[in-house]
Amino acid sequence: DGPSDLSAIEEMQKSETEALAKLFGNDPERDERLIVRSERPFNAETRREDLRDSFVTPNHLHYKRNHLPVPVVDEEEFALEIEGPHIEDGFRLSIKELKERFEKADVMVALQCAGNRRKDMTTGTDKPVKGLPWEEGAISNAVWSGVYLRDVLAAAGYPVKEYEKAHMEGVEHVQFDGLDGYGASIPATTAMDPQREVLLAYEMNGEPIPPDHGGVLRVVVPGTVAARSVKWVNKIALSDEESWSHWQRHDYKGFSPSATQETSDYEKAESIQDMPVQSAILDVSERDNRTVHMQGYAWSGAGHGIVRVDVSADGGKTWMDAELHVPPQDRNRRWAWTKWEATVKLPKGVKETELVCKAVDTGYNTQPETVDSIYNVRGVLNSAWHR
Amino acid sequence: DGPSDLSAIEEMQKSETEALAKLFGNDPERDERLIVRSERPFNAETRREDLRDSFVTPNHLHYKRNHLPVPVVDEEEFALEIEGPHIEDGFRLSIKELKERFEKADVMVALQCAGNRRKDMTTGTDKPVKGLPWEEGAISNAVWSGVYLRDVLAAAGYPVKEYEKAHMEGVEHVQFDGLDGYGASIPATTAMDPQREVLLAYEMNGEPIPPDHGGVLRVVVPGTVAARSVKWVNKIALSDEESWSHWQRHDYKGFSPSATQETSDYEKAESIQDMPVQSAILDVSERDNRTVHMQGYAWSGAGHGIVRVDVSADGGKTWMDAELHVPPQDRNRRWAWTKWEATVKLPKGVKETELVCKAVDTGYNTQPETVDSIYNVRGVLNSAWHR
Ligand SMILES: [Mo]
Ligand SMILES: [Mo]
Repeated sequence: DGPSDLSAIEEMQKSETEALAKLFGNDPERDERLIVRSERPFNAETRREDLRDSFVTPNHLHYKRNHLPVPVVDEEEFALEIEGPHIEDGFRLSIKELKERFEKADVMVALQCAGNRRKDMTTGTDKPVKGLPWEEGAISNAVWSGVYLRDVLAAAGYPVKEYEKAHMEGVEHVQFDGLDGYGASIPATTAMDPQREVLLAYEMNGEPIPPDHGGVLRVVVPGTVAARSVKWVNKIALSDEESWSHWQRHDYKGFSPSATQETSDYEKAESIQDMPVQSAILDVSERDNRTVHMQGYAWSGAGHGIVRVDVSADGGKTWMDAELHVPPQDRNRRWAWTKWEATVKLPKGVKETELVCKAVDTGYNTQPETVDSIYNVRGVLNSAWHR
Repeated sequence: DGPSDLSAIEEMQKSETEALAKLFGNDPERDERLIVRSERPFNAETRREDLRDSFVTPNHLHYKRNHLPVPVVDEEEFALEIEGPHIEDGFRLSIKELKERFEKADVMVALQCAGNRRKDMTTGTDKPVKGLPWEEGAISNAVWSGVYLRDVLAAAGYPVKEYEKAHMEGVEHVQFDGLDGYGASIPATTAMDPQREVLLAYEMNGEPIPPDHGGVLRVVVPGTVAARSVKWVNKIALSDEESWSHWQRHDYKGFSPSATQETSDYEKAESIQDMPVQSAILDVSERDNRTVHMQGYAWSGAGHGIVRVDVSADGGKTWMDAELHVPPQDRNRRWAWTKWEATVKLPKGVKETELVCKAVDTGYNTQPETVDSIYNVRGVLNSAWHR
């Protein structure tokens, strides 16, 4: 009813802002070239030109996806706890022990947010989606170094080699808790599979993992949606249940295009783990007035590599094969992205044309032509042709 | 130029027919319910109702795909040879030795021809395709029993466990030769991966493997195109090269929709190994004049299971979730198919409608809406929505 009320609201807002600032007070400085989608928690994607310019994305330019404030982690005091059937009671490891007791592994992995390209899911359908409006930059490629989760579980007492043959009673999932309060899980079959190379990582591109990316220790699950690569991980549990976290149970799931916010059944839908084949255009530059040079990335989940990227200069009527830059990784373990480029002739006698890319993976899976058939209210898993 | 020439031609044709009959003289009797696509070599698919009526397809109704005449194999005289780096010189195993020396494994696997649903690729595009006009029945589900290829390679001297960590120089592929003259290979990473469960099988659904299916010994590569599951296998070679067979090098590859018979580059394209997510309708029965009951199968390669089958009664405008019958197999090792059913209300006030199914796998890969974007001159890999 007047100035006094207004100032009360202002006062409240000011104290909220201050409380929030305090909560996020330990968040680090970030590179100004990142495209910020939310400040608190900090979420930012990488610019197309920065993804284009390097096969391995530099740490400061790697996209950042935080669900909560960045925690402060003291390497000296840090301990990783592991619990579950067969696990030694009170099993704990310091960072020093992790580094000393286990073989070090370096794995190049493209991590991708489930919501990468979400923005196109809205523009493509005019239907509502819930979540940050990511464009093509919620993906980056880095070399992660650390120890194999599998080796650590074995050292903790779990019969990992037996699990290879068939899953064992009581253990269906491996749950991860982060020091920020985030949690997630992966199927135990993925965790125990030597070929899946699930890491407890302490280095990112040869440096200690920066605060935004989960230092001092994070999980890296190659081939799987980044939401399962829990950052600042300090607790691992083998369980017959998935993680009970909100993000495992009531988020990061796919639904039928006909399911609404009300009818999406989070109990029934399976959590997203491996991701589908994906590709995007990062750059188009003119060579002459009838020729353009296109560049982009392609990737697929579960270790599938890319066998072909088709590009079109006429909206998909005709296609040519792009040239591929395949990562130096074994077949079935192509966790990194594939970069591609193509020099494309534009069709004659037309003013406007549409450039398109679509990829085919080693499982010969393909991308859907439009978002219509993969639309979901959560706006995840957009892998439609990129135009 | 008259009767004498005609009779000469007839004579020639008759002797060709006789020669052919002799060549295929050892081919077995087949069940009359099979839908024959070619007599010599014998190729036949399973009727929809026979696929519908059992989760495990009976041996005599399992689809049959032969490239050459069925060879005669004497179990007593049979020997499997293995050669390659690290392999003991002249390493051979009899069937008796295979059965006695190695652990027996039973694995339920849906085998699918690369050309399954090829016929729809023509009707969907009016473009030419090369190959047998398979409908939806070039797929079947069976329990294969035998020994793990991995165990046999280890016994032959190959350091299989080391290969798990990284591929080793000189071995990129495992080649298989069949007694009929057919040959193929798979990536060594697939062969050596304990989770991939590649088998040397001697039983099919609890019986000795029938002649049409590769008895006394065949390869079964779960999750991979059936063309690599070499029948009547008697020679295995570890090599830095793929099999030199026609079928590995100049067949069973995918191409861009714009590639023609002339421009398809068989040197450049990767051989088909794992297959994409697939589904088909096997039966539609009327419940009342506005309700139908639909049944079908869904499957995906590389051990991916099925998380959802969407069915539509209006050509894909709206969708509902089908009920799934998931095989009792570990996540990441769902080699068998998933059966599905749905009771669907037909739209009101329309005379004609289109029933559709499409599946989503555990990697959240999806099927393309039409064959246009996956058309290829070889007519393989048709995984478009089934209507
Ligand atoms: Mo995410
Ligand atoms: Mo085939």
